[in-house]
Amino acid sequence: MKIIKEISEMHEYTAKLKKRGHSTGFVPTMGALHEGHLSLVDRASAENNKIIVSIFVNPTQFGPGEDFDKYPRPLKKDLKMLKETRKVDCVFTPDRDMMYPPGAASYVTLENEMANVLCGASRPGHFKGVTTVVAELLNIVKPDRLYLGQKDAQQALILSKMIKDLHYNTEAVICPIVREKDGLALSSRNAYLTPEQRDTAPILYKSLQMAESMVELGERSAETIKKEIRRKIKESGVEIDYVEIAGTEDLAPAEIIAGNVLIAAAIFVGKTRLIDNTIIKI
Amino acid sequence: MKIIKEISEMHEYTAKLKKRGHSTGFVPTMGALHEGHLSLVDRASAENNKIIVSIFVNPTQFGPGEDFDKYPRPLKKDLKMLKETRKVDCVFTPDRDMMYPPGAASYVTLENEMANVLCGASRPGHFKGVTTVVAELLNIVKPDRLYLGQKDAQQALILSKMIKDLHYNTEAVICPIVREKDGLALSSRNAYLTPEQRDTAPILYKSLQMAESMVELGERSAETIKKEIRRKIKESGVEIDYVEIAGTEDLAPAEIIAGNVLIAAAIFVGKTRLIDNTIIKI
Repeated sequence: MKIIKEISEMHEYTAKLKKRGHSTGFVPTMGALHEGHLSLVDRASAENNKIIVSIFVNPTQFGPGEDFDKYPRPLKKDLKMLKETRKVDCVFTPDRDMMYPPGAASYVTLENEMANVLCGASRPGHFKGVTTVVAELLNIVKPDRLYLGQKDAQQALILSKMIKDLHYNTEAVICPIVREKDGLALSSRNAYLTPEQRDTAPILYKSLQMAESMVELGERSAETIKKEIRRKIKESGVEIDYVEIAGTEDLAPAEIIAGNVLIAAAIFVGKTRLIDNTIIKI
Repeated sequence: MKIIKEISEMHEYTAKLKKRGHSTGFVPTMGALHEGHLSLVDRASAENNKIIVSIFVNPTQFGPGEDFDKYPRPLKKDLKMLKETRKVDCVFTPDRDMMYPPGAASYVTLENEMANVLCGASRPGHFKGVTTVVAELLNIVKPDRLYLGQKDAQQALILSKMIKDLHYNTEAVICPIVREKDGLALSSRNAYLTPEQRDTAPILYKSLQMAESMVELGERSAETIKKEIRRKIKESGVEIDYVEIAGTEDLAPAEIIAGNVLIAAAIFVGKTRLIDNTIIKI
């Protein structure tokens, strides 16, 4: 497993892969790896013959007052996990100053409502940071396929659109959410939770399961379903950031459940912000 | 000379070039080709073994009321010129709807003052259109080297910065201005000029040459030089858009002539906007 820090070395490495006709699967991460990330590596391994993982805590996607400084960075543990449990060909671990040298001022932005709703409403500028860093990573890694988790559904949909709009020769592959036994979606931020908060956190997924049942039983009013989700979450005493139901194409708010809809929610368990979602196809 | 209209076909074509180890030089144009464009092709040919030219009149870099509709599109003549006078391997001629499919909303923007001064002040949004289309073209063509004319000095400097900021594996090569015998910089927009206007147009370069002489004779005040340029242009009865002197690094306004400075001007001859510039190294 090659570990590359320098962008110029990555350019050389990926040029060699292209020359040798390899197909490359790319899993961008912010580190603090868990089974969710590993599931993306597994999917990439099934579909490509060279696997590249990046580990970079991207400053531009954190807002002021968010958890950039305290975001976990267990780099050694991450590298060990990748090396010992999976066949990864290369891990790209750039520095902040390499990705954003002093004076860097170029951004990639999806300028439509997709980036302003849901997490975009709660975290202004967040998705601009995400599209910019992923564009940079695509320019450096030039993968055939990019693996994204449905856990960050809005991010995955926005990146898929950015890739299409800007004509990257990369296929975005969105992979299922990996969950703990009690349903809590795996997230690096789960590490922030106290044991008590950890016990409360599964309410997020339970409320989404309830929504799925409501739809299965015939409920089609988005408002009614959102109200029920809110009620259920509030019962457990945690704070709601948002509960939304939107079309998966454009993330426009849905009034009735029809076609493909995303039911997404964000909550604060203590100071820790957790997100989860489910996609329903009617 | 291969002519490719489809983006997916370009992806296949450039993947093959990479696999075969070719170096590729890319000349993006809006067509209406002249010796200026051909000089970029010549430089590209000297430095690469495969040459790709694109012809695409990019709607997003034209403002409302600008000349997008009447911009010349002599595609057959352009292709004939390339085929008969140069060794070009591939010409990429996409449609508007391919480059910007309905609903496309992703943009690449240089968010600093470089994009807001000089032509950026006169043409709001212009450089956002330029950086977006060139990012798209780089994603499609993936060249080793990109050839840009110094005629559009601000554009060349902004694109060089965008390429560096976003870590494209492409070297931006800025090539000298090609001029008519009387000094007028070659431009597709020169075709708009009436014979009388054509006679007046060289005043733009003459005023820049005068500025060069002033600097050679020891003048170091940017204000004094700009005043003289303006005076000289006004004498000939044409309208001035701007006359600016700026550092070539960041295009920040220069008060004294020192280091590398760009002296740039834009004028209206009738309704036709012409630009020209000179770079002075002290």
